[in-house]
Amino acid sequence: MAVNLAAPRAEDLLSVAGVQLGVAMAGVKKAGRKDLLVMRLAPGTALAGVFTRNTFCAAPVVLARKHMKNDVRALVVNTGNANAGTGADGIKRALQVCEALAGHIGCNPEEVLPFSTGVIMEPLPAERIIAALPKALLAKSDWLAAAEAIMTTDTVPKAFSKKVRLSRGAVCVSGIAKGAGMIRPDMATMLGFIATDARLSRAKLQAMLERIAERSFNCISVDGDTSTNDSLILAATGAGASPSTARDALKLEAGITDVARHLAQAIVRDGEGATKFVTVRVERGRSRDECRKVAYAIAHSPLVKTAFFASDPNLGRILAAIGNTGVDLGKLSLYLDEFPVATGAGRHGSYREEQGAAAMRKPEITVRVVLNRGSAEATVWTCDFSYDYVKINAEYRT
Amino acid sequence: MAVNLAAPRAEDLLSVAGVQLGVAMAGVKKAGRKDLLVMRLAPGTALAGVFTRNTFCAAPVVLARKHMKNDVRALVVNTGNANAGTGADGIKRALQVCEALAGHIGCNPEEVLPFSTGVIMEPLPAERIIAALPKALLAKSDWLAAAEAIMTTDTVPKAFSKKVRLSRGAVCVSGIAKGAGMIRPDMATMLGFIATDARLSRAKLQAMLERIAERSFNCISVDGDTSTNDSLILAATGAGASPSTARDALKLEAGITDVARHLAQAIVRDGEGATKFVTVRVERGRSRDECRKVAYAIAHSPLVKTAFFASDPNLGRILAAIGNTGVDLGKLSLYLDEFPVATGAGRHGSYREEQGAAAMRKPEITVRVVLNRGSAEATVWTCDFSYDYVKINAEYRT
Repeated sequence: MAVNLAAPRAEDLLSVAGVQLGVAMAGVKKAGRKDLLVMRLAPGTALAGVFTRNTFCAAPVVLARKHMKNDVRALVVNTGNANAGTGADGIKRALQVCEALAGHIGCNPEEVLPFSTGVIMEPLPAERIIAALPKALLAKSDWLAAAEAIMTTDTVPKAFSKKVRLSRGAVCVSGIAKGAGMIRPDMATMLGFIATDARLSRAKLQAMLERIAERSFNCISVDGDTSTNDSLILAATGAGASPSTARDALKLEAGITDVARHLAQAIVRDGEGATKFVTVRVERGRSRDECRKVAYAIAHSPLVKTAFFASDPNLGRILAAIGNTGVDLGKLSLYLDEFPVATGAGRHGSYREEQGAAAMRKPEITVRVVLNRGSAEATVWTCDFSYDYVKINAEYRT
Repeated sequence: MAVNLAAPRAEDLLSVAGVQLGVAMAGVKKAGRKDLLVMRLAPGTALAGVFTRNTFCAAPVVLARKHMKNDVRALVVNTGNANAGTGADGIKRALQVCEALAGHIGCNPEEVLPFSTGVIMEPLPAERIIAALPKALLAKSDWLAAAEAIMTTDTVPKAFSKKVRLSRGAVCVSGIAKGAGMIRPDMATMLGFIATDARLSRAKLQAMLERIAERSFNCISVDGDTSTNDSLILAATGAGASPSTARDALKLEAGITDVARHLAQAIVRDGEGATKFVTVRVERGRSRDECRKVAYAIAHSPLVKTAFFASDPNLGRILAAIGNTGVDLGKLSLYLDEFPVATGAGRHGSYREEQGAAAMRKPEITVRVVLNRGSAEATVWTCDFSYDYVKINAEYRT
């Protein structure tokens, strides 16, 4: 039961010139569900990517990082199997899929990026994926179907589009993402794919994506576990306008950030077992790192997360979580939504338990921590910790 | 339902000459339960203590740290209210309790150490505690009753005794502890009190306690949340023998460590919602810090902890948790109990799912990570993450 998150409507999603999407049912883990996505990119498309920093990263991440250097012509994404912890055999199987797809579309295997998500340490059934490729190459561009084809424990497909008006004409930005657990991206989330028809150099695109990831996917946490397969890709096909002024560049980056943030927040809203969407905002810290440390201390505390689930304004747990970072709390102010609830010395004089209870009952809660030690700030989006989180993860493989 | 943990039998607990214990029902939070403990110490007792590093530490911790410098004559411990996040008023109320107890036993208030555990950010009902002091001063020395009087969400009282034979005679070591949630001690656990009749200087005792804490309470985690009230106290009354040789000193330290470790493990066995007791042993790392980082990454991962709960040998989650530390896994070997299950490259050749399933079904599991990068090692004890953890913490204040 996602928090304030409906499935996107097909008519709200914009095609991106230069991008072709197709999906198929390969039966990777279960029969009868979309689990394969092929995204073809027009020649000349610039591509940027950020990947997990988990040292136990998956075979497709290793290959995608390597193949990124070439002119990429297609992405191939399967769900149901992460091809992680599979060693040299995993690399071989991922390459087989790249080779098969390259054969169909007439490019080099090194111009295909593979992505996988699902269970870890099971051999990738490459032959089933390869058999389903022709079907995935037939289909039309349908961003909603693409979003559905990459879901695992997600309950809602995640896709978002935006039109950005540049001085030489409008460009489209469309993106999809998946992820509900093992979410605490260090570079990007589980899987996110964003495309635009804007024209941008590869170097500019990569720098832009890194800034965007910092303000979107790298600000979310469901359970503090960074995935082995995290990948975020941004493709610019160049079929549309190019940003010709500094203002254009800023508008385009803001538009893509908006799509990325929408997708990142959708992952939290659909976090495993989530019943609350929580924004943790830390202000006036000494550095962004300090603010992020405090925000994640709150976002990762099982005691704070179960209190959100219970709609319990248990301020002590929030303050204890902050105190664990070692940051000086002498000048701290803590707010739940608009209510000042506590300071470093204890309860705020005006605070009444009903205020906290009212804030905690809402499906969307903002926790604001003002450190009064400097001028940096950071925001993290997270969800609560419910019976269903335990249930989903205790039963994942059974 | 604690994991392999029965309540201690009164007859197994040893009196410590120079220590008098008394308990009472002060009605701090609920009526009709033991919630107050007074531990009187004979003149000349040496005392050592380690405390939480949480910067949001409680009023009693502030006072106990300060009063430690004096010749301590009594400890006063209440449960039901942590007196944390209560500012100057909290300090005042804790001092009132010290003053009242000092009046009864004829010492200075600065020779009394106060301790509190329970809900955070509620005013301490000092008057109720003060009213119950005479009752707590009447009672006999009963370590089991003392352990019961400091319980919060604990389901089993935690006490342990040991006799250590030194060259000049035997000494006794008895200790009690409490804690079930908000457990990831940074200096000590929620509350632990150990006493011995051995004779030791205060400086030696403090150094010994710091070493002991590192190998006992500082090696456990239930939920990764460090409490605001963590305190571990070691008292040596000197009524018995003093260690007169280096071998005596080692034997005594080993004996006290044994008591401390038993109590620390009892906290994990009785961890909130725990159904499994898990030993995470990391070997052959570059440093003890590296080994501890890896061990805690496993012990704190909600995905790993829910897999333990489900008896699911989900190796990928363990490897992903290790990978998140950034430590090179190239030469890694992973074992579940005695079975080699994985290497950095993936599944171990000989591993069969039944082996992992058999290991995970047991109530006590050892996860052994051999990094093959150095010669350091570390062990952490933790428990699983169950529906009941969420239930206990979602309903704690309701």
